[in-house]
Amino acid sequence: MAGRLAGKRVLVTQADDYMGPPTLEIFRAEGAEVIADRSDLTAPEAAQNAVDEAGPIDVLVANLAAYNQAGRKLDTVDDATFAEMFEVMVYPLHRLVRAVAPQMTERQAGKIVVYGSASPLRGIPFLAAYSSARGAQVGYVRSMGTELAPHNIQINLIAQNWVESDTYFPPAVREHPKFIARMQAQVPAGRLAKPEEDVALAVFLASDESDYFVGQCIPFSGGWVQ
Amino acid sequence: MAGRLAGKRVLVTQADDYMGPPTLEIFRAEGAEVIADRSDLTAPEAAQNAVDEAGPIDVLVANLAAYNQAGRKLDTVDDATFAEMFEVMVYPLHRLVRAVAPQMTERQAGKIVVYGSASPLRGIPFLAAYSSARGAQVGYVRSMGTELAPHNIQINLIAQNWVESDTYFPPAVREHPKFIARMQAQVPAGRLAKPEEDVALAVFLASDESDYFVGQCIPFSGGWVQ
Amino acid sequence: MAGRLAGKRVLVTQADDYMGPPTLEIFRAEGAEVIADRSDLTAPEAAQNAVDEAGPIDVLVANLAAYNQAGRKLDTVDDATFAEMFEVMVYPLHRLVRAVAPQMTERQAGKIVVYGSASPLRGIPFLAAYSSARGAQVGYVRSMGTELAPHNIQINLIAQNWVESDTYFPPAVREHPKFIARMQAQVPAGRLAKPEEDVALAVFLASDESDYFVGQCIPFSGGWVQ
Amino acid sequence: MAGRLAGKRVLVTQADDYMGPPTLEIFRAEGAEVIADRSDLTAPEAAQNAVDEAGPIDVLVANLAAYNQAGRKLDTVDDATFAEMFEVMVYPLHRLVRAVAPQMTERQAGKIVVYGSASPLRGIPFLAAYSSARGAQVGYVRSMGTELAPHNIQINLIAQNWVESDTYFPPAVREHPKFIARMQAQVPAGRLAKPEEDVALAVFLASDESDYFVGQCIPFSGGWVQ
Repeated sequence: MAGRLAGKRVLVTQADDYMGPPTLEIFRAEGAEVIADRSDLTAPEAAQNAVDEAGPIDVLVANLAAYNQAGRKLDTVDDATFAEMFEVMVYPLHRLVRAVAPQMTERQAGKIVVYGSASPLRGIPFLAAYSSARGAQVGYVRSMGTELAPHNIQINLIAQNWVESDTYFPPAVREHPKFIARMQAQVPAGRLAKPEEDVALAVFLASDESDYFVGQCIPFSGGWVQ
Repeated sequence: MAGRLAGKRVLVTQADDYMGPPTLEIFRAEGAEVIADRSDLTAPEAAQNAVDEAGPIDVLVANLAAYNQAGRKLDTVDDATFAEMFEVMVYPLHRLVRAVAPQMTERQAGKIVVYGSASPLRGIPFLAAYSSARGAQVGYVRSMGTELAPHNIQINLIAQNWVESDTYFPPAVREHPKFIARMQAQVPAGRLAKPEEDVALAVFLASDESDYFVGQCIPFSGGWVQ
Repeated sequence: MAGRLAGKRVLVTQADDYMGPPTLEIFRAEGAEVIADRSDLTAPEAAQNAVDEAGPIDVLVANLAAYNQAGRKLDTVDDATFAEMFEVMVYPLHRLVRAVAPQMTERQAGKIVVYGSASPLRGIPFLAAYSSARGAQVGYVRSMGTELAPHNIQINLIAQNWVESDTYFPPAVREHPKFIARMQAQVPAGRLAKPEEDVALAVFLASDESDYFVGQCIPFSGGWVQ
Repeated sequence: MAGRLAGKRVLVTQADDYMGPPTLEIFRAEGAEVIADRSDLTAPEAAQNAVDEAGPIDVLVANLAAYNQAGRKLDTVDDATFAEMFEVMVYPLHRLVRAVAPQMTERQAGKIVVYGSASPLRGIPFLAAYSSARGAQVGYVRSMGTELAPHNIQINLIAQNWVESDTYFPPAVREHPKFIARMQAQVPAGRLAKPEEDVALAVFLASDESDYFVGQCIPFSGGWVQ
């Protein structure tokens, strides 16, 4: 089987974190040649270096994740904690897009898939710094989607929540009866998503099937946001 | 190749209209066994009959389209014209879902894909009857998505606009310079969608890849709605 | 005190139901001359008659409420029950707007405030018929808002939920510990809204303060929808 | 006349910029005691100092505006330009809220009104840095709204666009025929908003009339976003 991403060169950032490992596995199974970047993207030149080293890439998967800030009350979120969210998840997004857009513009083709969050679409208490940075990604993708569309470059965002991931829902949390009860009360699907279900949406957004998606933030949350 | 819908029995309504023909072709190419219903679903028993005749079905594609009402000013939309939109696009949706839900509930598995419209998400003048009926579909899908999710039945809606279709944008319209200029001013993608691009989203929503989508209305409009 | 609606003639429909009584009281206290219509608007000519009898009106408050359908499972919603939602809440909305638009267009000024629901914005199970009809109002208001704006007529909708009303949350319900617990888990405000808080938004949308609001559906739900 | 903000002490930031001047004038006319802060809020301690100097305040109006970044193509937005948007519009928002929340929590009452933007809700090309920072405000307000609601503190955001302001639409721009044509094609209201119309929404959100609004981002854009 050729696979839905056959012939695509794909750069995946923070390859060991968050959605990185399942993305690598599934994108490769779909025929993509995946370049896994593991550099610390908070360094100002890191994004440009990652793109330069990758060479020609058809798809950028912007996988940017800070440690979860859930449970941080307003008065405990100092300036450094707040700014870190943006330094990890927002500034590198801009640098990555800026680095990769010229080659995609030259080829008049490209896809950028952002693993984002549903949290800026529906308020969660004690999560303001994180939700704010994820909201910055939403505003960025909508604007940049409109800007890049005429060059046949599509940037879209997966607004996810409730995905089984050790970064955000470690086993000890997700097996806790109180967590399960709260999740079932809030998530119409009644369960966490398996990482491969999330990556299936990323495959769709990375493939030629989604050329008419422009700057969209697609909820992926079991109906928590519709 | 097995195809992404291999082994699925799919019922497609209004098979000769709107998204019917490309859906039949592409779903079959993806391995589905497609039952094409061509009955007039405004008759009260028609939906139940269509489902009964189809037998066991894994996927219902609710393809319900009235003639476009674009260009109808408020004062020209009489009661019959207004009600017709609901009799064609809304009441049959409920009857189809009600007819198909029992067998899906029994199997604890099923997909319902609704070809809807982006018009209730962003106002278009001179289209109130149509937008209102399409908005009814949105409200229906969100509620029913939540209700059916615990039975592992997913109902989702494609909120489309600017899809090349002879029903809504006949060739004479879509080749008209004024239409092209207006479309390019409004649609970030700068072009109409090809029907097969729209069906690609329907394939995604009909397949096992989208089990975590619950009651969603996904814009498909080249960035016109994001 | 002159009041924020001084000199406005306001037609309020279904004046004894739902948001009718508090609207009459508060709009009058704000200086409006309120015409209370109590006719059954499901009769085809009733809307036109109500408008004709009211004479010149600056503001139409479309207060249209069916008995709540909460708790109705899909298989119990027969065709008549489903259609009734539209005959009570949707068809009369169109007839009222069609009846009142000519005089407002002639004066190049007017306001239409629709008491709608947040339910089509966020799925509630066992409420599909109701949510669907309320969703039809949303699609109608967005389209018609855009159509009427050039005539300086503003139509907007209050997408409400969790408002203390005997129609939807009778005392026996709202004092029940299980209801209170469920409400507090779901509503960030942690309480039901008092009817007068809801009417305060209607006053804003009926007054000259909201001339730049066009076809909007404003959530009013204590943060349940944001 | 007592005014709708009688007895309220209100802190308005960046009082000479953006929505500052009309807010001062109209809030005072509505009976508020307005404290106008003119300090540079990019300094880390400035927000806390402004709140400390203001003393007890019932309402915070977070008026934070960077020079408009419209017309900046992706490749011209360097890291410093990008970060500046956040340093001016996002980090100070968090610092202001953190500084003012303790006294509001103690009184179990307070309002925070954010003059934000509709740009993160609908993509505008060549505006990614600005839209991203405004999107950060949206994510922040939704989360923080939910967090503060139990203390009877309401934070909401005005998602505005097309408001007549010298900061964003200087006279030379707004009188230009090409601008007028583009605006009329995009804005259903067919005109810019007068600043006082925008402030009328801020009055509503600052007053006791809006106690049931929690973390909302209300479009104010003449129907450009609905």
